[in-house]
Amino acid sequence: MKKLNIGLIGYGFMGRAHANAYRKVNNFFDLGHQPVLKSACARNEANIKGFAKKWGFESIETDWRKLIARDDIDVIDICTPNNTHAEIAIAAAKAGKMILCEKPLGLNGPEAEKMVSAVEKARVPNMVWYNYRRVPAVTLAKNLIDEGKLGRIFHYRAKFLQDWTISPDLPQGGAGLWRLDVKAAGSGVTGDLLAHCIDTAMWLNGTIDTVTAMTETFIKERKHTLTGKVEKVGIDDASAFLARFSNGSLATFESTRYARGHKALYTFEINGEHASIFWDLHDLHRLQYFDHKDEGKLRGWRSIHVTDHGGGHPYMDKWWVPGLQIGYEHSFVHQVADFIKGLDEGKNPGPTFKDGLATDYVTDAVLKSAQTGQWEKVKKVK
Amino acid sequence: MKKLNIGLIGYGFMGRAHANAYRKVNNFFDLGHQPVLKSACARNEANIKGFAKKWGFESIETDWRKLIARDDIDVIDICTPNNTHAEIAIAAAKAGKMILCEKPLGLNGPEAEKMVSAVEKARVPNMVWYNYRRVPAVTLAKNLIDEGKLGRIFHYRAKFLQDWTISPDLPQGGAGLWRLDVKAAGSGVTGDLLAHCIDTAMWLNGTIDTVTAMTETFIKERKHTLTGKVEKVGIDDASAFLARFSNGSLATFESTRYARGHKALYTFEINGEHASIFWDLHDLHRLQYFDHKDEGKLRGWRSIHVTDHGGGHPYMDKWWVPGLQIGYEHSFVHQVADFIKGLDEGKNPGPTFKDGLATDYVTDAVLKSAQTGQWEKVKKVK
Amino acid sequence: MKKLNIGLIGYGFMGRAHANAYRKVNNFFDLGHQPVLKSACARNEANIKGFAKKWGFESIETDWRKLIARDDIDVIDICTPNNTHAEIAIAAAKAGKMILCEKPLGLNGPEAEKMVSAVEKARVPNMVWYNYRRVPAVTLAKNLIDEGKLGRIFHYRAKFLQDWTISPDLPQGGAGLWRLDVKAAGSGVTGDLLAHCIDTAMWLNGTIDTVTAMTETFIKERKHTLTGKVEKVGIDDASAFLARFSNGSLATFESTRYARGHKALYTFEINGEHASIFWDLHDLHRLQYFDHKDEGKLRGWRSIHVTDHGGGHPYMDKWWVPGLQIGYEHSFVHQVADFIKGLDEGKNPGPTFKDGLATDYVTDAVLKSAQTGQWEKVKKVK
Amino acid sequence: MKKLNIGLIGYGFMGRAHANAYRKVNNFFDLGHQPVLKSACARNEANIKGFAKKWGFESIETDWRKLIARDDIDVIDICTPNNTHAEIAIAAAKAGKMILCEKPLGLNGPEAEKMVSAVEKARVPNMVWYNYRRVPAVTLAKNLIDEGKLGRIFHYRAKFLQDWTISPDLPQGGAGLWRLDVKAAGSGVTGDLLAHCIDTAMWLNGTIDTVTAMTETFIKERKHTLTGKVEKVGIDDASAFLARFSNGSLATFESTRYARGHKALYTFEINGEHASIFWDLHDLHRLQYFDHKDEGKLRGWRSIHVTDHGGGHPYMDKWWVPGLQIGYEHSFVHQVADFIKGLDEGKNPGPTFKDGLATDYVTDAVLKSAQTGQWEKVKKVK
Repeated sequence: MKKLNIGLIGYGFMGRAHANAYRKVNNFFDLGHQPVLKSACARNEANIKGFAKKWGFESIETDWRKLIARDDIDVIDICTPNNTHAEIAIAAAKAGKMILCEKPLGLNGPEAEKMVSAVEKARVPNMVWYNYRRVPAVTLAKNLIDEGKLGRIFHYRAKFLQDWTISPDLPQGGAGLWRLDVKAAGSGVTGDLLAHCIDTAMWLNGTIDTVTAMTETFIKERKHTLTGKVEKVGIDDASAFLARFSNGSLATFESTRYARGHKALYTFEINGEHASIFWDLHDLHRLQYFDHKDEGKLRGWRSIHVTDHGGGHPYMDKWWVPGLQIGYEHSFVHQVADFIKGLDEGKNPGPTFKDGLATDYVTDAVLKSAQTGQWEKVKKVK
Repeated sequence: MKKLNIGLIGYGFMGRAHANAYRKVNNFFDLGHQPVLKSACARNEANIKGFAKKWGFESIETDWRKLIARDDIDVIDICTPNNTHAEIAIAAAKAGKMILCEKPLGLNGPEAEKMVSAVEKARVPNMVWYNYRRVPAVTLAKNLIDEGKLGRIFHYRAKFLQDWTISPDLPQGGAGLWRLDVKAAGSGVTGDLLAHCIDTAMWLNGTIDTVTAMTETFIKERKHTLTGKVEKVGIDDASAFLARFSNGSLATFESTRYARGHKALYTFEINGEHASIFWDLHDLHRLQYFDHKDEGKLRGWRSIHVTDHGGGHPYMDKWWVPGLQIGYEHSFVHQVADFIKGLDEGKNPGPTFKDGLATDYVTDAVLKSAQTGQWEKVKKVK
Repeated sequence: MKKLNIGLIGYGFMGRAHANAYRKVNNFFDLGHQPVLKSACARNEANIKGFAKKWGFESIETDWRKLIARDDIDVIDICTPNNTHAEIAIAAAKAGKMILCEKPLGLNGPEAEKMVSAVEKARVPNMVWYNYRRVPAVTLAKNLIDEGKLGRIFHYRAKFLQDWTISPDLPQGGAGLWRLDVKAAGSGVTGDLLAHCIDTAMWLNGTIDTVTAMTETFIKERKHTLTGKVEKVGIDDASAFLARFSNGSLATFESTRYARGHKALYTFEINGEHASIFWDLHDLHRLQYFDHKDEGKLRGWRSIHVTDHGGGHPYMDKWWVPGLQIGYEHSFVHQVADFIKGLDEGKNPGPTFKDGLATDYVTDAVLKSAQTGQWEKVKKVK
Repeated sequence: MKKLNIGLIGYGFMGRAHANAYRKVNNFFDLGHQPVLKSACARNEANIKGFAKKWGFESIETDWRKLIARDDIDVIDICTPNNTHAEIAIAAAKAGKMILCEKPLGLNGPEAEKMVSAVEKARVPNMVWYNYRRVPAVTLAKNLIDEGKLGRIFHYRAKFLQDWTISPDLPQGGAGLWRLDVKAAGSGVTGDLLAHCIDTAMWLNGTIDTVTAMTETFIKERKHTLTGKVEKVGIDDASAFLARFSNGSLATFESTRYARGHKALYTFEINGEHASIFWDLHDLHRLQYFDHKDEGKLRGWRSIHVTDHGGGHPYMDKWWVPGLQIGYEHSFVHQVADFIKGLDEGKNPGPTFKDGLATDYVTDAVLKSAQTGQWEKVKKVK
């Protein structure tokens, strides 16, 4: 089995999720490559040392440029705040590294375009961590749509609701809170949460043509952790938009961090001519499905417990036995497995940097519409 | 349309539910007879006057014997405590009246046998108010079983859980509380709640052969409303039993009034070779259904919203439009409608007094087994 | 008890729902007036005769002008297609009748303004049948908000999803299908379904300031039942909008008749600073509630079975016992009960014609925005 | 950090689950010991080699006696069929090894007694893999009970339903199917599934005094994989029992592999004076909770998404962020973590061999009662 040497930048929530995926993927999947936790990188030496020890990385770096310069690194995995993605990714591409980049790809479309150019020029395998595509229930949804089970699509609706920033006492910026700092994050829930909704939506239902949006910042000022001062909040706390897909279907999207009672309620529903689908991250191992072709008196929404590999549920033959659920972290394991399978077979299963760019174009249009009050066209990836 | 003159005895919870059913059945069903609220009867003159006025009864009686003696009464409807059912029903049968009797039929099997003999001798139409058979979702369950959708049945499980007697300060006996008084009720949850479970079970799954049971009285003494004294509690607060049906399936049954959080949680589940069914009174307009013949990856429990008459849901063509639910009281309307349809067509759709006797035989065996600690055979109705 | 003589115009779905409410309200509520089914009116004599017989109306009329002219009629109840509401209501007001009018009030705001003027000038009690306010779970939601349980409101979202017009073979116009005929209905789902969502929303969360909307007609042509020809479809099949409430909260609204699997899925959710609420018409007897003030480890969405009058659930003391649910039709009974209580006490509990006008202003803005692509201001009722 | 050298016997479903737990526990928990995958053991050399390679074991053995004899092994982990537990465990104890044994502990109480004696004599740390105690929602249930939230307990009910043996074509015995072979398994669902229910029940609700049971073998003969012949099936396909706990509460327990539609539906419910709890393995990250002390109109079953470490949910501070669920395998990680924490602190957190014996005593009484038809006393662990 070939080694695949990983250089991971960042050690936060995503750093842990990725490290876990690399460590366990070969225990469950038969693959041609084995990820090796070669080096972990971050500016704070004490922190990155602790992280590397905990996860078994062979070495550390405190400068990502040095990491990229190393010959023994095959893959650069970018788990840093959004405003650093472009610079790192472009440098990594130039160094001929494969790149796995956290989402959103860039701070905006123009930045992401440069990242796409860089990886295309360098011809390096690339991927964006829109991990929800690899939740088995979501992959099953994709399969059902591809089989034509739904027929013509009329409606798509998605939302991603959280409630962790309701308190005005929460500061912005710094470790763990960079998502509230517009400089580091680029935007609020639009780039953080809606980006997930949009990636899944376009994977399942094709491209989006036009949008009209509204955003709101409920708490106007927060203390900034880095400056110690009360500063204007630049991010959007909530964002909602109407959309028209290229296939003629209509959509509503909404995201907020002010929906009391929801921690990570990412849901989507698709209504087709023949059948409908609903999914909810809070119970990610279930897919709700309604099929109008069922006998009339027996029609109802089915709660499919997506754990039955004998029944054909994606990825589930790798895990336990029917009825026993997997969780959030497994979506990352699946993404690594698919990435490696792609390497083995010379294909890129996506989401590629181009896919990431397409999502950035939508969030750009959303943010612009929220300013102009107009319907905005979404730029298409060539 | 022929008139069907009703003489109703009792004005409590069931008196109201029945009166409502008689009043509205012809607004929704096309039938050959129309019930007329001819007379309401109870010992307390002021109370029965108020009740009669509220519901539009044409007259009152304070002695049920006088009611039975009246020529202008076609049907005697018995809504009184359990210990009065037999005497009234036997007298009514002798007077040639049709009889609709609240459940359980008698205080026990031997008493119920006399009631069956009386109606058989008099050849009068008769029915017991096991109303849950007429909840559309339950009727749909029956239809599915009769069509063979489930195949061989392996398991039946039912429970009826309440929580209204947990407080030791609740007295026993008297208006509204006669169900706690063993003299009036005969037994506790066994005759009150398990009787419903058993009637449905035998309707859906055939006769029960043997049972082993346990009962418990958690609060041993309560003040008696009628005597004013603290007296021993004679009823069972909780009752559970294992059973074997004649068709080889195994069953568990349980009932209690000490299940905190449940007001009237009557549920049943049937597991067959090919399909399974689940129903819950708290959401009575839904039927849960699992069909193993569905395509593997799409198998799941369907939540059927039993409101779609176009889809073939029983009774629902009489009510509103798909998606709009009916409630508890409608089961009584349906039972009256079916009783009248039976009259029109010369058939007895049941549950008949014989069906009521069959249930009494099961509760007799349950109560006996709780005493002996042995498996007890259930007497069969000839 | 005083008599309240009802003259009902129309005998369709709503005619039945109202007649049922009048017939049973006094069996369950203690009121100072008793509705009398005095006369039913429709152009088709055979049909209205059948309807009147089935429901026990004392007489019929085939011309609503004659009905209004009758001295023995106290209340005119308008259950006819939308394009007739204004003419009938204004005439009834001039004749000094009380008016209960089906929703939406007028075909649009300007028409509804005239209706409001007419009832104000005539000083007659008036009401619009936005019945969902009287579902006990919805009333409970209102009570919780009024008590301040939610604190500052951040988000409101509502949808009303159906699937009954997906087939292109369904004709438009005529009995039972006038909702598809833009001349009779005025609009499609906007006036039919979103109007319900908007009335509830403004009752719970105050007025709406601005909206941006999109509408779509998926099936462009349908055979017209009355002309026999294939004609352009003028109604909106689907309608969605973003909104800003006067209290600063953000909202999404959506309605369609192309959501496969949903018959009448009217849902709303409100996210407040301290608590959130969710309701779903498909399980109308439940309210979902999340309270952040609960002990941390015990926080969760509660599924409140709104059947416990001892616990303080609105209207439920009038019905059965805790755990036993009521259904759709009861919302109309409650509305009649509240209307009569208002008469008894000289108050108008609403929704009044003014409330109906306020909703028409919102639907006007929605339909206009769908044309202009702009955010539109909602006219406010003076 | 000290090393903890693991010698794992068996490479099936449980072998994988345990290996995964050892590999990842230190990535998420701060502990004084680190498990090392020292050696994997099984008779089939090719198979155990493949397993060892996949999981990174340093060596293999094909004879468990040799494994036990090795000085570099600290812990013997027994993942073999039930009929081998006792011999291996007793030998391991004599060799002074710590022992982690799959459940059920022995084939029956007398066998398990010898295992308890062996570990007590050898004074070696010991544990039985009743892993469900370590599902965060189940641990939370335990915490709530220990805090007195429920008050006096009235009822306990548990079931574990599967459907994987309905087909008569399924053979018995051999790899993956030894659970159907009475010689290897000792019993059917009683020792396999009910044992889990019983361990959890006694952990939460104390000891069981008496039981009455029934068992059934629906498919009487199956081809035996090892002999190639059709042989009598010796295991119980279904098993149900009534029980009385020492604290006065009543219980029902049921298990089967013939419940169509359920893959691993392990549920339990506890009804206390003040509060009730419900849990379901199919949605293992949720706990249902009802608290009568809530304000009357707000009482309802809460669906607690047990992912909020800030709220105090057990183990969840080690994983991701609130709202993101973990799965089945994490219960094993938690059990390893707790075992190691016990080593660090010199305590045995259980379930110990003694706890395993207590469960064996209950299953013995269940199987005996199914034979005698009598209530049987449960032997108590001294």
